[in-house]
Amino acid sequence: MKIAILLYEGFTALDAIGPYEVLRSVPDWEVEFVAKQRGEVRTDSGVVGLTADRSLEEVGEPEIVLVPGGIGTRELMGEEEILAWLRRVDETTKWTTSVCTGSLLLAAAGLLEGKQATGHWAWLEPLRDFGAEPVGGRYVEDGKTITAAGVSAGIDMALYLVGREVGTEVAQAIQLGIEYDPDPPFDAGSPQKAPAEIVEMVSAISRAE
Amino acid sequence: MKIAILLYEGFTALDAIGPYEVLRSVPDWEVEFVAKQRGEVRTDSGVVGLTADRSLEEVGEPEIVLVPGGIGTRELMGEEEILAWLRRVDETTKWTTSVCTGSLLLAAAGLLEGKQATGHWAWLEPLRDFGAEPVGGRYVEDGKTITAAGVSAGIDMALYLVGREVGTEVAQAIQLGIEYDPDPPFDAGSPQKAPAEIVEMVSAISRAE
Repeated sequence: MKIAILLYEGFTALDAIGPYEVLRSVPDWEVEFVAKQRGEVRTDSGVVGLTADRSLEEVGEPEIVLVPGGIGTRELMGEEEILAWLRRVDETTKWTTSVCTGSLLLAAAGLLEGKQATGHWAWLEPLRDFGAEPVGGRYVEDGKTITAAGVSAGIDMALYLVGREVGTEVAQAIQLGIEYDPDPPFDAGSPQKAPAEIVEMVSAISRAE
Repeated sequence: MKIAILLYEGFTALDAIGPYEVLRSVPDWEVEFVAKQRGEVRTDSGVVGLTADRSLEEVGEPEIVLVPGGIGTRELMGEEEILAWLRRVDETTKWTTSVCTGSLLLAAAGLLEGKQATGHWAWLEPLRDFGAEPVGGRYVEDGKTITAAGVSAGIDMALYLVGREVGTEVAQAIQLGIEYDPDPPFDAGSPQKAPAEIVEMVSAISRAE
């Protein structure tokens, strides 16, 4: 299975690296990081870069494409080169996937029209502008599209995808390998669980971005 | 708070990027990725690199140092330059931390002697060779040292550290921001929870590495 993970200036590192760590652990699966040009791509924080080994045009027909989210999506949603590439690879993918606000990129490319989709909880409604139906859930499968919720949700989505493609045992082995037995010290990971004032604060920060 | 995350050839990306995504979200905290030389450092899979913006000698006195794990630790445990750097920064850190087999590097540097520590479940016993006492747990605090379990455990540790340093509210806001409401599709993230044959398989792979 060939997997292409899209990088762009201003992506969120964990959106990409969470699912990468799962997908790259499947025997014979090949992950490639791709970007407009080969080379370093800086994350949203600016303090670290990841290397894309392939440019968009060098990518053949990946069976899985994964689009991370991040503040950089804002600009990218208007870049026809990116949107056209997403439409092009989607024609032959087995799975077209996103994490966090990466679903807005898929939506802007026209790939979520009439589909149920999710994304970061603070950025669900804009999906409607592109004809998608935003729904809750850690990840949402509709046809060959799987969209994951915010940032860390890509790990759960990737484990699901591995389980679906190569079976429960491989997915469990990978989960054990990355010791993914989550035990956060707080229980504030969703707007339903976090204290109301925290939800309001994070919503305000998201709106101001 | 200045934070230095050590990169080296063969580190595991999620070990570094999980806690980075939490720590870099704290207002006024500054994360730097450091390595022997500035520039790209390749992960254990070889398919992606992260950029270190600082060389070891350029690092002043970070208040938090974080050492990720990965197959590359094997070689690094014998590299005096790295071990000496860890001892040097540890003299003035507020917190010296690791994820996964990063604890073996701290141990090899002599920084876990007489301390309780954890790491990847398959690599706990070797900690004894360096005078540390391996214990279970998602992360283990002993004095100013915090060691986390395998790979994904760095996210939990980082949230704990943020809660401890700047309070529950900031940690909760970050948890909500990265939508860390984990819901893995399987419950196999620890050797206590995974089916016995999966544990045996992953142990065998670890031993063969």
